[in-house]
This record gives sequence, C-alpha cells and structure tokens, in this order.
Amino acid sequence: MKLTSIRQELPAVQRLAYLNTGSIGPLPRRAAQAIAAEAERQLLEGRVHSKQFIEESPRFLTALRARFARLLSADADEIALTRNTTEGMNIAVWGINWRMGDEIITTRTEHEGGYLPVYAAARRFGLSLRVVDIGERADPTALLAALTPRARLVVVSHVQWKTGAILPLAEVAQAAHRVGAWVAVDGAQSAGAIPIDVRASDVDFYAVSGQKWLCGPEGTGALYVRRERLSELAPTYVGYSTLAPYPAADNAGYFLPAPGAKRFECGTVYWPALYGLNESLRWLEEEVGYEWVFAQRRAVTERCREILAETPGVTIHSPPHEAGLTVFSVAGLEPMAASDALAEMGVMIRSVRDPDRLRVSTGFFNNEEDVFRLRDGLLKLRTKI
Amino acid sequence: MKLTSIRQELPAVQRLAYLNTGSIGPLPRRAAQAIAAEAERQLLEGRVHSKQFIEESPRFLTALRARFARLLSADADEIALTRNTTEGMNIAVWGINWRMGDEIITTRTEHEGGYLPVYAAARRFGLSLRVVDIGERADPTALLAALTPRARLVVVSHVQWKTGAILPLAEVAQAAHRVGAWVAVDGAQSAGAIPIDVRASDVDFYAVSGQKWLCGPEGTGALYVRRERLSELAPTYVGYSTLAPYPAADNAGYFLPAPGAKRFECGTVYWPALYGLNESLRWLEEEVGYEWVFAQRRAVTERCREILAETPGVTIHSPPHEAGLTVFSVAGLEPMAASDALAEMGVMIRSVRDPDRLRVSTGFFNNEEDVFRLRDGLLKLRTKI
Repeated sequence: MKLTSIRQELPAVQRLAYLNTGSIGPLPRRAAQAIAAEAERQLLEGRVHSKQFIEESPRFLTALRARFARLLSADADEIALTRNTTEGMNIAVWGINWRMGDEIITTRTEHEGGYLPVYAAARRFGLSLRVVDIGERADPTALLAALTPRARLVVVSHVQWKTGAILPLAEVAQAAHRVGAWVAVDGAQSAGAIPIDVRASDVDFYAVSGQKWLCGPEGTGALYVRRERLSELAPTYVGYSTLAPYPAADNAGYFLPAPGAKRFECGTVYWPALYGLNESLRWLEEEVGYEWVFAQRRAVTERCREILAETPGVTIHSPPHEAGLTVFSVAGLEPMAASDALAEMGVMIRSVRDPDRLRVSTGFFNNEEDVFRLRDGLLKLRTKI
Repeated sequence: MKLTSIRQELPAVQRLAYLNTGSIGPLPRRAAQAIAAEAERQLLEGRVHSKQFIEESPRFLTALRARFARLLSADADEIALTRNTTEGMNIAVWGINWRMGDEIITTRTEHEGGYLPVYAAARRFGLSLRVVDIGERADPTALLAALTPRARLVVVSHVQWKTGAILPLAEVAQAAHRVGAWVAVDGAQSAGAIPIDVRASDVDFYAVSGQKWLCGPEGTGALYVRRERLSELAPTYVGYSTLAPYPAADNAGYFLPAPGAKRFECGTVYWPALYGLNESLRWLEEEVGYEWVFAQRRAVTERCREILAETPGVTIHSPPHEAGLTVFSVAGLEPMAASDALAEMGVMIRSVRDPDRLRVSTGFFNNEEDVFRLRDGLLKLRTKI
C-alpha cells in the first residue's frame, strides 16, 4: 500500500524497471513541481529577488543544510551545500595544508570524484601516494596497514561503487586518527541508501550527492565537515558565498570566511533546483521516513539477490547484506552491450568496467516485479547467444 | 518594432522596470520552455539517459562551448563550461604552478569572485600580493607600474562592477606578457553587454556568467583558456568530466585530462539549465544578433545617462561611453534604502558599497520608459526627504 503510493509519486518508476539509482535516482512529482513553480516565478517576476526573498533565503538554506545534517547525524553548521559529491571531495582534499612528502592514502576502486582530486593534489604538492587494494568485500586491512605517522588523509567510499560493499568506516577512522590522519568519505552510494552516522563513524569529511538515492535534482549535494576541522581546512575555491557578513575583507589580502561549513560554499546555483532538492528531502524525511527507506531498500536488495542467484548463468560479485548495489556477471553476455539491450526493454541498469560487470541498483521504491523484469530481460538476452 | 517583440519574449521586462541585469538578467520564454521541457522529460522518463542521449550529449556540449567561443572570438576547444564567473576565476588562479614569492596582482575594486581566489591563493602559496587602485575610470597605469619580472598573474575585470568602466585589456595583457605574467579576466559584466575579442585583447583566461547579460539560467557560465595555456594550467577541482576518454587513469596516480578546456570541467550539473542556456545564447546570436544587442545596449545606456544627468540631485560616477552599468548617487538618499524603496515601485536597480552608491544596468531590451520610471521613482523618494 505505502509502496504503491510511493511509486505513484515517482512517474519514471512506473514506466521503467528503474534499477539505476546508483547513477541517478527517480525524481518525485513534488520536487519537479517545486522546480517548475520557481522556474515560472523567475520567468514572470524576474530573478532580481525581492527584499523579502533576500531576507528569507538564508533561512531556507540553513533549513536545507539542517535536512542533510539530520540525515548524516551532524549539525547544520557542519554542512556545506555543494553541486555534487565530487565537489565535496575536492573541497576536502584541496583544503589541507599539505607539505611535500605527506602521505595520502586511497583505494584502487574509488570513483573518479574521489581518486582524481587525490591524484591531482599528490602531483601538485609532492605527496606520497598510497593506492591500496581493499578487494571486493571492502576489507580495510590494507588501508590500516598503509597508515604511517606521515599519513595526513585517507580517501575512501562508504559504499563501493563497483561492488556495493560497505567499508567499516569507524575502524578506518579510528586507526587514521591514531596516526594523526583524517578521513574523507565519498558517500555518493550511501546517502539515502543506508543509515549514516558521521559521529559514530568518527570521520572528518563526508560528501554526498542529491541526485542519486536522495531523489533530488542533478547539480546538488552536501559536504559534512566535522566541527573540529572547520578551522583546520582552508576554503580553496572561494567566492561571495564563502564570506562572513559584510565587511569581511580588506584591500590587503585579508578575508574572513563565514562561520561554519558555509565557508566552503562558492558561487551561484540554479535556485529552482534547491527548492526541488528540499522537497525530495522533505518527502523522504517527513512522509516516507528514512527508517522505512532503509529497511525497504534492504529488503528489495536481498530479494534482488535471491532472484539473480536463481537466474541461470548469473554470478553475483557483491557481498551479501550490504548497500543498494548488486554487481554481477552473466555467462556469455558482454556487460555494456547487455546494459544497452536491457535499456531497450525498459530495464535500466548499468555496466561498470575494470572488471567488466553489470550493476543493478535497488531502491526503496523498487518492487519484486522490477527485478523480475531484469531477470526476464537477462534470460531473453541469453537465448540469443 | 524589434524591441517590442524582444520585450514580449522577456516577461519580467514587461512587468518591471528591469534595470538590474548586472546582478541577474531577464530570462527569455524559450529558455524557460527548454528548461521546463527537459525537467518534465526527466520526471516522466527518468534521468537514466538513453544510449542515444549519451551519444548526443557530447555533441550538444561541444555546440554550447562553440556558442561561447563565437561570443568571445575563441575556438570551442578553448572553452570550459562552468557554473559561474567565480568558478572560472578560481580555475585560473588555482591552476598555476605557483612558487613561493611569485607576484600576483589585482585591483582594489574586483568582485569577490575575482579577489577572493587571489587572496586565498596568495595566503596558501606564499605569494607576494599587489592590490592596486585603478580609480573610477579603470586607468591601467597603476597595474602597469606594479608589473615586475616576478609577476605571474594579473587578475582584473573587463567591466568594473562598481563603476561600469572598461579596462583597456590589450594594454594590460601586452605589458603583462612582456614580463612573463598572464592575465585572468572577470567578464561577468562584459559578456553580452559589450563586444569581446579575447585574441585581440591578448588575455590568457576570460571567465563569464550565463545568468547576467546573456539572459541564461543561474549556475551556468564559461571559461576561456587560451590555447597555449591549456597544457600550462593544471586542472584543480577534478572529476569524471575532467578525464580523457577511457582508459585515462591507472592505479598509481597517473591520469590523462581530456583534450582542450573540457579538462577544467568538473562534476554533474542541472542538465535542463544547460538546455535553457543554449536557447538563450541561440536567441541572442541567431535572432536578436549580438551586433544589435551591443548597439542597442549602448544607445539605451547613453539615454539613461542623459536622463539621470538631468534629474535633480543626481551625480553620475561612471565614465561615459562605457558598458551597461551606470553608477550614481542622489543627494539625500541612502543607496540601500533607496534601492529597496524603488523595488517596491517595480523599479529594479541595486546599491553597491565602498563607496555607497546606486547602480543601474541597461540592457538591449530596456527602453526609455524603463529609465523614466527610475527617474520618477527617484524624484518621488526625493520629495520624502
């Protein structure tokens, strides 16, 4: 019953076997309506905002940061609004006062949004780079072994985008902190898919995207910056939104950043998208309920795993009981071509590379029928081999 | 006649005396329609794009970069799509291989999007910072005098946001190049207001916003990176869009950026806004025509200046025959309060600070009547003193 009404709120889910939320999630009607309403207002009334808007918008942004804070078990002033997880990871990596020879540690299986800033900063600042293999089960042993007193930053994903495995963050963070290193987490595949508690996991930075499991618009996201790090991480890309209230700068090189993580925000955004994001988050938090989201997501993921395990030719690579991603191979099917062929049948999943595999995302809004459509599609492709 | 049909395309201009394009411009109906159509498609069909979309989107983005390239007299592969001018200025400032003691030069009257990255980079890399006074007429003398062989970068605005004065870029760039320094230009108040020729002006980096004089959506913009600098400026914030086609990275710290200025692009964007931007630029280029845009803008700015000059109590601070901004004071009126009071009369201008003044923006779509409404509003406020 509840699932039925949820699926009615998500038109794309009714139309397709929508199993690619790990790339980008379905948008709820109310988010689209909020975007359209503000876009229409901008067109007709102009975007030179009224005094009322200017006074109200900081309150709106604070409330939006607070929504992310509750999701992550943080405080609102530890949240910077960003454009995506990638921007958050860049803010964390570039904000450290690097010294030549400092060690930066990451894994062989990060997304581009995580490893590229690490590679770029390592080259720029002459850092010692350690890229470790945590395997398909996100075993932290190699990460822990790589930690030395020269380590400054560990860059990892909470949920691994190519396996769905969950890294035990608290174990990594505690070991990192023992040697004086910080931990920056790519949360693109966790936020909205599994519960997150940045305090319990003890990490320093946690970056999330709005458009995946949180069903928000593209170009939105947030970065958690642990309170103690707010004054230890320098803003890198800076602009008007970085500043403390006027006057916050002189003509000699001094400027005072805003209190809290707002100091890491930079530049104008497409404002209607923020209204849409707020509606997506409000819906998940206040109507669907995050506890229900996580429990339902877990149940449908487990059911997906069962169905795939019973499908001839399928090998599942993801460890069980993890996040919303299930990575698998099908004997005789080339993943990229199979993904394209499934899309033509209305079954939306994706392929990943290194190694080449298929990846299915199961969200709180998916049902068994979606997974059966995937299975039927795979069986159909198998008959053509 | 032409102006009438242009104003019909811009609903906000019909409703208000829309004289604040320097903050944010009016949106044409066709841009709003393109945004709404893609937003609706995303809602109904999902945002997991088809194979066709994935194949077509690089062509769309190349065509969008080409629109900016034609506007700036550059080549498409010298254009990176950004979120705003501020992002472009950050890319330019942070991408230089700074050495401690290098000199960076800017003016006392830059926007936050220009001077803040300069201040932040100066602090981070131990640069020698020179902040010079170019006065109300954008006299480059002090800039030229500040250039020494240790200078690496000069950060200036083409059109000064607090006066509207135009800096003679070629003079600055040629002097900078003689000592081996590069020039990064904040073009927020020039792109769409005056002709720009990055080759003739000989600058190295030129950042523009979509949402001001180009009448595009917020959160859009572009950065010109001169061909010779593409391999000399390092990408700082990096992500998936930075990369060359797969495989472009290994597990040991190596990655190959995309050819051309695409290497400076980073992270997901709100895709419907790009469609809107493309429609705004298409309209200006193919239907209104940039030559007409610039000539009409100039004519209405000059008329605005005449009308203000004849208005009792008004002192104009902007030099004549410059860009679309006219900065002025009115005896007895506090600028911020006056701007708020005018907004209540439907007259949209803005105040600036240091020094406190009023700023009116006149675009190609404005008419004499808009300026008379401003004058009448000012006279009404003067009677209340």
